[in-house]
Amino acid sequence: MSLQTIINDPERLLQGDQISDVYKKDTYVADVAEVQAVALAKTTDEVVMLVNYAIEQDLKIIARGAGTGVAGAQVPIHGDELIIDVSQMKQIIGLDEATMTLTVEPGVPLSEIQEYVESRGYFYPPDPGSKHSTIGGNVATNAGGMRAVKYGTTRDYVRAIEVVLPTGETVELGSLNIKSSSGYDLKNLLIGSEGTLGIITKIKLKVLPLPKYKKSVLLAFDSVTNATDGVLTILANGIEPTALELFERGTIAYSEKFMKQNLPIQSGDAYILTTLDGNEMESITKSVQAVKQLLQDKAIATLSLNAEQEKQAWKLRDTILVALMEFTEFEMLDEVVPINRFAEMIGYTKELEEKHGIRVINFGHAGDGNIHTVLMKEDLDHAAWLVRREAFLADLYKKVAALGGLPSAEHGIGIVKKAYLEKMIDPVELDLMRKVKNAIDPDNRLNPGKLV
Amino acid sequence: MSLQTIINDPERLLQGDQISDVYKKDTYVADVAEVQAVALAKTTDEVVMLVNYAIEQDLKIIARGAGTGVAGAQVPIHGDELIIDVSQMKQIIGLDEATMTLTVEPGVPLSEIQEYVESRGYFYPPDPGSKHSTIGGNVATNAGGMRAVKYGTTRDYVRAIEVVLPTGETVELGSLNIKSSSGYDLKNLLIGSEGTLGIITKIKLKVLPLPKYKKSVLLAFDSVTNATDGVLTILANGIEPTALELFERGTIAYSEKFMKQNLPIQSGDAYILTTLDGNEMESITKSVQAVKQLLQDKAIATLSLNAEQEKQAWKLRDTILVALMEFTEFEMLDEVVPINRFAEMIGYTKELEEKHGIRVINFGHAGDGNIHTVLMKEDLDHAAWLVRREAFLADLYKKVAALGGLPSAEHGIGIVKKAYLEKMIDPVELDLMRKVKNAIDPDNRLNPGKLV
Ligand SMILES: Cc1cc2nc3c(=O)[nH]c(=O)nc-3n(C[C@H](O)[C@H](O)[C@H](O)COP(=O)(O)OP(=O)(O)OC[C@H]3O[C@@H](n4cnc5c(N)ncnc54)[C@H](O)[C@@H]3O)c2cc1C
Ligand SMILES: Cc1cc2nc3c(=O)[nH]c(=O)nc-3n(C[C@H](O)[C@H](O)[C@H](O)COP(=O)(O)OP(=O)(O)OC[C@H]3O[C@@H](n4cnc5c(N)ncnc54)[C@H](O)[C@@H]3O)c2cc1C
Repeated sequence: MSLQTIINDPERLLQGDQISDVYKKDTYVADVAEVQAVALAKTTDEVVMLVNYAIEQDLKIIARGAGTGVAGAQVPIHGDELIIDVSQMKQIIGLDEATMTLTVEPGVPLSEIQEYVESRGYFYPPDPGSKHSTIGGNVATNAGGMRAVKYGTTRDYVRAIEVVLPTGETVELGSLNIKSSSGYDLKNLLIGSEGTLGIITKIKLKVLPLPKYKKSVLLAFDSVTNATDGVLTILANGIEPTALELFERGTIAYSEKFMKQNLPIQSGDAYILTTLDGNEMESITKSVQAVKQLLQDKAIATLSLNAEQEKQAWKLRDTILVALMEFTEFEMLDEVVPINRFAEMIGYTKELEEKHGIRVINFGHAGDGNIHTVLMKEDLDHAAWLVRREAFLADLYKKVAALGGLPSAEHGIGIVKKAYLEKMIDPVELDLMRKVKNAIDPDNRLNPGKLV
Repeated sequence: MSLQTIINDPERLLQGDQISDVYKKDTYVADVAEVQAVALAKTTDEVVMLVNYAIEQDLKIIARGAGTGVAGAQVPIHGDELIIDVSQMKQIIGLDEATMTLTVEPGVPLSEIQEYVESRGYFYPPDPGSKHSTIGGNVATNAGGMRAVKYGTTRDYVRAIEVVLPTGETVELGSLNIKSSSGYDLKNLLIGSEGTLGIITKIKLKVLPLPKYKKSVLLAFDSVTNATDGVLTILANGIEPTALELFERGTIAYSEKFMKQNLPIQSGDAYILTTLDGNEMESITKSVQAVKQLLQDKAIATLSLNAEQEKQAWKLRDTILVALMEFTEFEMLDEVVPINRFAEMIGYTKELEEKHGIRVINFGHAGDGNIHTVLMKEDLDHAAWLVRREAFLADLYKKVAALGGLPSAEHGIGIVKKAYLEKMIDPVELDLMRKVKNAIDPDNRLNPGKLV
């Protein structure tokens, strides 16, 4: 069968010059190699036929969602890759209130899912900053986001996935059953596998009742160390924040400049922005008071935000990455360390700033021990940037490993962090991962060269 | 190396006549085959040496915890199995309050873990009825229990496991990091794998702060259907019960007889026993009132239990299985269906009772859609029991599959449910499971003949 027979619609089949550069890059990585063809599938059947075509022609396959990835995971690197773009498989199939399950196609943007369920009184907690990323991409990278500290990551909301395997077979992994001890957990193996084990063509998501109330608090500190201490204090006292973000003044300044709006507290070197949610305003108020009281000596300013301020503060937080892109070249990391090592890790980035002469700012999902350290090129010349960055990263990941951390909390490994992952995890574990990959995809057809 | 060199302590190495019948059975399955040898390992190093010995001698290996399993998963079935009993690896290594992690050896009994953490103000939520089962067994079967409806199963509390692989290599899967998108999720693959992929030698568990308050309510209904409706009503109204158990009068009667104590409500055909917990008594009281009000028309009696009654009611619930063993031969199932099919499933067991002439009682973790249907032999003769039971089970599992359910929610597959699993899940999925097994254990050395 030819590609034209499979995708009988010229607008959904791109070849040669028709392939825009968009397909050769993600948020960070660009122009590594050419693309054989791009097929914008609309149905699982089309995906199956495309996989069978790739088997016949011995092509490699890359599944692609919205391309908002930041690890080069969906970027072609060999030149013989067929991109299966699933962003047009974007139907919301339906919400089953009896089982609190939302069934969707993989190309639905996250923002649509959030709006759809919230307008019906339900809640889909995972909340990465990239609201236009697809749910399929979120599942393939196990995306995290702002609310992971209380609600967990994408993994925790996937009940079942339909997957097209590298053999061309289709299988549903997981089910609507709440519990299972019925065989190996293959669903979790596929989640976070960055398109290297199967192409996700349908997803059944668990949703929750929408919490009735929420309240956010902004706290300013005169040092990052005091802010990280503050994070630990909140967590150690049994408070369950929905979100618990930390950012430096130097970080949020980029958003302020970009949005031309200011955070309601301007003093301080570092901030905690936290939200509490629940069904009883009273108990939220209690928690807010507890946070303020626990940190009254440590913080230099605290403010319970009204609805307007809350929206603005979170918008500023969400915009950090986009704002950075406006002002300088940079490298954003996604390291994670055990929560009690968070302060030490951030402190160490400051040592490296001095040592390597690269300006560093940090922000992160502090409640999860997940830091986005950002190395800023600013006006370093290209050669110095490349050399210093490499030395910086080598040191940084060594420290992450020493603290028991990992290179990626939520963005994935792709090609950007592959070499570091290989150095940081036990060779026995790496070997196991390769054995599993080889068992499921012996021809190394799916997203070769990524992850392992 | 000989076995005697590896285990240099005659009390920890059993061969021939020294091997008691205990090692040939679990709670349900007995005397299928002989055992080559039983080694009671005390350290990971010993486990590694035992695995290497088995490789050399081409023996099969079964890991064994407390032997409370109910699926025949740790019963020898070939005669050439070396049993590695880890019940003497029973040290609680320590509680790290900073990361809220408890590190234990696999042989620690669940009850000890619960006592250890609760006496320190922490909480380990998974709560299977078998308090003397080992934590290693719990991880290997992904044990569920009473509190899964709110808190999830064992899987949700495992941060990391140390595993001895069938190659004799040791690896730690998972970490203390709260989030990860750093490669395939092998930890979840091992959890629930019933000793077929690796031997768990150390476990890092996530613990929570102990909730300050709890309150239980007992509700009686004049039919199972009304009780199952009641379950759905509670769940649909956003109430988050810690435990939500359903049992029939005919079920709890066995516990009452065995314990010589009565449930505080005697009328009714079926009951819901539910607990609510939290850090604010006020909000628990509100939920209790909501439960009562929502079900005031459906229930024939409701009772908020005082501390004494609560303890007794839960003890009666926990004792069901042990009590049954006293009175009759039986077959207890562990089916799970999507929560909105729970009532239909229970209703169907009653149809089968009539059709096949086997008395049936039900109890279960209603909040999870998990039913323990019990087929009672009573005074059926052995031949009739075998024939009718087989026909009954064939019908029952067909229905479970039709409702989108699975054969095991928490007990595992072992040998008892293997044939049913094979019929109930997609052959493509089964094939994937076998590929994974073969990739990790190509000589089929670990617990052969179990699960897949
Ligand atoms: C401004 C901004 C903010 C961000 N904030 C966050 C954040 O807070 N948290 C976070 O976790 N991430 C964040 N990200 C990263 C990114 O948005 C996520 O990784 C997202 O999940 C990627 O989704 P996508 O649809 O864009 O996938 P793509 O970029 O298209 O693909 C990413 C990977 O998933 C695979 N994939 C995509 N669809 C499928 C499918 N259907 N089947 C199989 N594999 C598939 C691809 O092969 C590739 O390996 C952010 C990115 C940006 C640009
Ligand atoms: C009265 C009673 C009540 C019960 N209630 C519940 C309940 O509410 N919920 C529930 O889920 N289960 C329940 N069970 C079932 C049983 O207790 C669980 O399956 C338990 O997890 C088994 O633990 P164990 O230590 O006895 O394991 P075993 O029976 O010794 O072994 C079970 C399986 O785990 C494997 N295994 C054991 N240790 C290891 C290890 N270290 N490494 C690798 N594999 C290992 C074995 O090979 C076997 O496949 C109940 C059982 C009884 C008798």
